[in-house]
Amino acid sequence: MKILILGMDGYLGWSLAQFMTARGYEVAGADMFFRRNWVMEMQSHSAIPIADMRDRLNSFKKKWGETPYFEAGDLTEWNFVSKLFKHFQPHCVVHLGECPSAPYSMIDVHHATSVQRNNLMSTLNVIYAINEYTPDAHLIKLGTMGEYGTPDLDIPEGFFEVEFRGRKETMPFPRNAGSWYHWSKVHGSNNIMFACRLLGIRATDIMQGVVFGTQIDEMAGDEKLFTRLDFDEAFGTIINRLCCQAVIGHKLTLYGEGHQKRSFLPLRDSMQCLTLVAENPPEKGEYRVFNQFDEVYDIMEMAQRVAKVGSDFGLNTEIYNIENPRLEKEQHYYNPDRQKLINIGYQPTHDLESELRIMIPDLIRYKDRIEEVKDVLVPSIRWSGKRRRSNILERTCEY
Amino acid sequence: MKILILGMDGYLGWSLAQFMTARGYEVAGADMFFRRNWVMEMQSHSAIPIADMRDRLNSFKKKWGETPYFEAGDLTEWNFVSKLFKHFQPHCVVHLGECPSAPYSMIDVHHATSVQRNNLMSTLNVIYAINEYTPDAHLIKLGTMGEYGTPDLDIPEGFFEVEFRGRKETMPFPRNAGSWYHWSKVHGSNNIMFACRLLGIRATDIMQGVVFGTQIDEMAGDEKLFTRLDFDEAFGTIINRLCCQAVIGHKLTLYGEGHQKRSFLPLRDSMQCLTLVAENPPEKGEYRVFNQFDEVYDIMEMAQRVAKVGSDFGLNTEIYNIENPRLEKEQHYYNPDRQKLINIGYQPTHDLESELRIMIPDLIRYKDRIEEVKDVLVPSIRWSGKRRRSNILERTCEY
Repeated sequence: MKILILGMDGYLGWSLAQFMTARGYEVAGADMFFRRNWVMEMQSHSAIPIADMRDRLNSFKKKWGETPYFEAGDLTEWNFVSKLFKHFQPHCVVHLGECPSAPYSMIDVHHATSVQRNNLMSTLNVIYAINEYTPDAHLIKLGTMGEYGTPDLDIPEGFFEVEFRGRKETMPFPRNAGSWYHWSKVHGSNNIMFACRLLGIRATDIMQGVVFGTQIDEMAGDEKLFTRLDFDEAFGTIINRLCCQAVIGHKLTLYGEGHQKRSFLPLRDSMQCLTLVAENPPEKGEYRVFNQFDEVYDIMEMAQRVAKVGSDFGLNTEIYNIENPRLEKEQHYYNPDRQKLINIGYQPTHDLESELRIMIPDLIRYKDRIEEVKDVLVPSIRWSGKRRRSNILERTCEY
Repeated sequence: MKILILGMDGYLGWSLAQFMTARGYEVAGADMFFRRNWVMEMQSHSAIPIADMRDRLNSFKKKWGETPYFEAGDLTEWNFVSKLFKHFQPHCVVHLGECPSAPYSMIDVHHATSVQRNNLMSTLNVIYAINEYTPDAHLIKLGTMGEYGTPDLDIPEGFFEVEFRGRKETMPFPRNAGSWYHWSKVHGSNNIMFACRLLGIRATDIMQGVVFGTQIDEMAGDEKLFTRLDFDEAFGTIINRLCCQAVIGHKLTLYGEGHQKRSFLPLRDSMQCLTLVAENPPEKGEYRVFNQFDEVYDIMEMAQRVAKVGSDFGLNTEIYNIENPRLEKEQHYYNPDRQKLINIGYQPTHDLESELRIMIPDLIRYKDRIEEVKDVLVPSIRWSGKRRRSNILERTCEY
């Protein structure tokens, strides 16, 4: 199976290239390195130093015996996308080539439009390239659990049966996202659902929880194979950010009351899931939605775990509430389904605590790099549009 | 009340400028004349000759005593939009500045991306301009009844109560559009719903049926005040197109079986509704959805009315099925609500037949202009992406 990874230079993309190569698949990739620029714009850098693509590919060859076919280019350019598909002829396309940050999209009108434009135009180009060059290829599109928002209902996997005034139909479950970025993912899901009906494309739309983790086993042994680990307010996901706070003795900061519930997944299990999905494609013309996560946590509970594991490594950590820069419910019902991945064989490998026991020592090695730009650990991008660093409120709980 | 009409050079926009000025409102407008280019791209022109904006504004002044403030510019450019709002300070913004064609968006990947980009970026800029310069202004956004698709359920006005596994919540009614254009309107609706929650903007999202008609009373007496009337496959709406076919003795062509049901509204009633909506704004932060149409017709039934009224004007007309270039259900349930406009005072003024009695003689005057480019009356843009003129199938019914 030939797998094309769009966004191969990213946190998930670079990991997936190695995970799938290790399992014998022929991998190719594309990236225009926008993520590196965006993180620089945030005045931050990856906690784990990453090599540039030339060095990455050389190390890849040493370890795995061959260099993946890689092209640098912008997925919003049709000429680039069409050449890529025509040349590589993938059986499966994993589309990770989108801007993945809610806060980044909320900075101002320019960031709102650039995130929606980038994410929508790239996906439309990918849809048309599949249709033109590889109509049987399976599109795996990364959405997010954030597309659903936090309704006062259970969250099914994409679709549900509606009963309305005595008539019934299976309908897409209404989305209610909380940022321009999350809405760009909803728009993308809608476009792909239509593309399957229109063009007979097969697609799996992954509503993924928040990913965390510093490594997967496949990248061990060569620093140039490591994937990035962001901790700035825009590109650092919450567990990664809390771990970075812990290792430099920074207060662990929770937005608002800190009882938001979210779904989470370790990096290695994200790789397992994406590979299982690629190995179990949908029928031609089928659009299916998978909710992809391992566990649901209250973020306070999660911070307590980080603090607890941190203390085993000699870190002394306190948990504080800060002003919530986002517009979100801080107490809410949350009960999403997660059955379809189990049905195709997904087995969670590491629970939160065992993953934290890998992450914290990994990050202690790069303590100085985190310390160097530590201001980025407290958010300044506010959903109101008026940028200002959140005030730290009070110490909230023991662990 | 100061009203800003985005897309003032268009079919609805130019009519609305006159309708609202006649009612004493201060009107301003913006347009970059893209519609004129798109119709040229279709190798067509408006059946009713239209003046250029300079002449339009001069005639406007003669009739109404003043020239509306008008700026030519592209709504996808933030600098243009922000200057416009800063200068005019509207109380109400009617956003008609989008590409309104389903077939146009289905030509190929370039048209799909350009329609979605244009429609989404312009709306995001408008949202941010309201927030920055006129936070109390009422945004009236033109969506389409096509956002809903044709579910096997009644269609409420935007929202409905969901019961799922024993829990209840009011949710957006799931959309299921049938073209990239229609999806661009869904994406826009979603963005505006979020903007109301995020920024406290007030907005009415109009799910409008298919508009038809050659004139409103306010433009009578000066040809330079007439609005455009398109009949090409991309920008001609169905009743307008059928009337143009009738006046040149062309077969009336119905897509596929011809039993699609759609909701319709005469141009003059669209103007009445938009004005009522402007006069009855929502609360600050409120996002409301109005279904805006007068009657629902089976398109076969509609063609029979066109033929019948045509025969009263000496036109001899036959109705034929042609290959359906679209992907759509040709037999389906259709029962949309339309109550909110009635609640604020909407009174239908002209039924289909009385409107046709105005349209057909209007169009007979411009018979030669229609004849000149008559090839555009039969569709060639196919939802499959392979462009080819539809074959005419069989004569379908008497009237």
